[in-house]
Amino acid sequence: MTAHASIATPGGISLATGRDVRLASRSGALTGSTAGFAPGFVQANLAILPAKLAFDFLRFCQRNPKPCPVIGVSEPGDPTLSSIGLDLDIRTDVPGYCVYKDGVLVDEPADLKAYWREDLVTFAIGCSLSFEEALMAADIPLRHVEKGVKVPMFRTNIACVPAGPFAGPMVVSMRPMTPANAIRAVQITSRFPSVHGAPIHIGLPEAIGIKDLSKPDYGDAVEILEGEIPVFWACGVTPQSVISAAKIEYALAHGPGMMLCTDLKNSALATG
Amino acid sequence: MTAHASIATPGGISLATGRDVRLASRSGALTGSTAGFAPGFVQANLAILPAKLAFDFLRFCQRNPKPCPVIGVSEPGDPTLSSIGLDLDIRTDVPGYCVYKDGVLVDEPADLKAYWREDLVTFAIGCSLSFEEALMAADIPLRHVEKGVKVPMFRTNIACVPAGPFAGPMVVSMRPMTPANAIRAVQITSRFPSVHGAPIHIGLPEAIGIKDLSKPDYGDAVEILEGEIPVFWACGVTPQSVISAAKIEYALAHGPGMMLCTDLKNSALATG
Repeated sequence: MTAHASIATPGGISLATGRDVRLASRSGALTGSTAGFAPGFVQANLAILPAKLAFDFLRFCQRNPKPCPVIGVSEPGDPTLSSIGLDLDIRTDVPGYCVYKDGVLVDEPADLKAYWREDLVTFAIGCSLSFEEALMAADIPLRHVEKGVKVPMFRTNIACVPAGPFAGPMVVSMRPMTPANAIRAVQITSRFPSVHGAPIHIGLPEAIGIKDLSKPDYGDAVEILEGEIPVFWACGVTPQSVISAAKIEYALAHGPGMMLCTDLKNSALATG
Repeated sequence: MTAHASIATPGGISLATGRDVRLASRSGALTGSTAGFAPGFVQANLAILPAKLAFDFLRFCQRNPKPCPVIGVSEPGDPTLSSIGLDLDIRTDVPGYCVYKDGVLVDEPADLKAYWREDLVTFAIGCSLSFEEALMAADIPLRHVEKGVKVPMFRTNIACVPAGPFAGPMVVSMRPMTPANAIRAVQITSRFPSVHGAPIHIGLPEAIGIKDLSKPDYGDAVEILEGEIPVFWACGVTPQSVISAAKIEYALAHGPGMMLCTDLKNSALATG
């Protein structure tokens, strides 16, 4: 992933580890996407919600583990999350954030200092960057990475199992592959249930309500070549989509592509 | 597992499926252990807690997935759990229950009709019977099954990651195996992260605070033969032990060995 070689960072700053990226985000040195940085370290989606909704949301995640694989949950009001990052401060350690009120995006601040509340709970949710690293290590090409664009994502007709106010369709990401690579990708990603796990669908987009693969709902379209089939994974955009649809009075999230870089290693997530 | 062939059930009653066992429990026809019944179906540990503690407990489980693999969570006050069992009624569908007040066992009723409250949340937690079935299918002998006794369980010096009032040591189960079978057992149980997953320790009991394998804290001792090593899995007794230690004002659970039999198939839990 070389798409972000152009991101301006002060000369000599290291972005080799999750903590490096967090500190660079905290200092303001890193303001864009985290893709390609902290190789080997788990990057996570963020959902930050009032404590009164925390059990509903965690129950939603338990019921929908493929789109919503939880890798860390904070204590209510506590901006640290030491189980996944040394001296992590969730208010500053991501390059940028989104602030939602009643489901509407109202601000995209560089930090959450003005938006933090004593009743907030942070959920860190696994992200496909972890399994993409394992796929690339197995020499499975990923077209969106090769082209330097965002992975194409689609809303499906697969309903998530609801919990409290949280409900809605599963969002999936799509990667075109040769059949042989698709089979190998099933094997590899099955070892990573805490970062979306095995594909949820393969080969027949219309069967999950996707009419046109050239028109993704999020991200960028990629070409499907002769002899390739589309492979679909549950996507971490699902919880964001569900939180927005629920018109939660107050919710915070990471900015697009600006993930929380943790101290966990992708390799440590493999179950077998 | 033939240990329960002697359990008295009315002539002709089938205990072949999870629902069969639930209905037999509901009617009072089945009053003992569920081991050996509903082969192929997931059996679960139960923890039933007041809603005000539900987020703390679910967060505890998220932080300790090996001893506390959650397979279902109810809506507050709702005695059904349709995601894991058709027309399941948690108040009646287990052969027997335990009632704890302030951490003390105060009753062992046959049903929860007199103990149900509108603020209770049910947690169904995976159980080693699921992975034991996979081990036996691979011709790996399990001594406690051969001997018709309970698996030996030990408190360790491994601290669970706390959440709210829930804290305490991990409890493990032990199965002696030849080294070749131990390796195969790691492979097989790694595929089942939602029912405790891979072993948490192998070979050196003193390293996890176990002084004497002949004196389990729960269950029955089993012999370790020449050429065998002890293999340890995180155990679903851990959440019970933690709930009891937290002296929760009101908590319900299944009776020993009397599990909630679900409609889920063990084979469906495999991640790869």
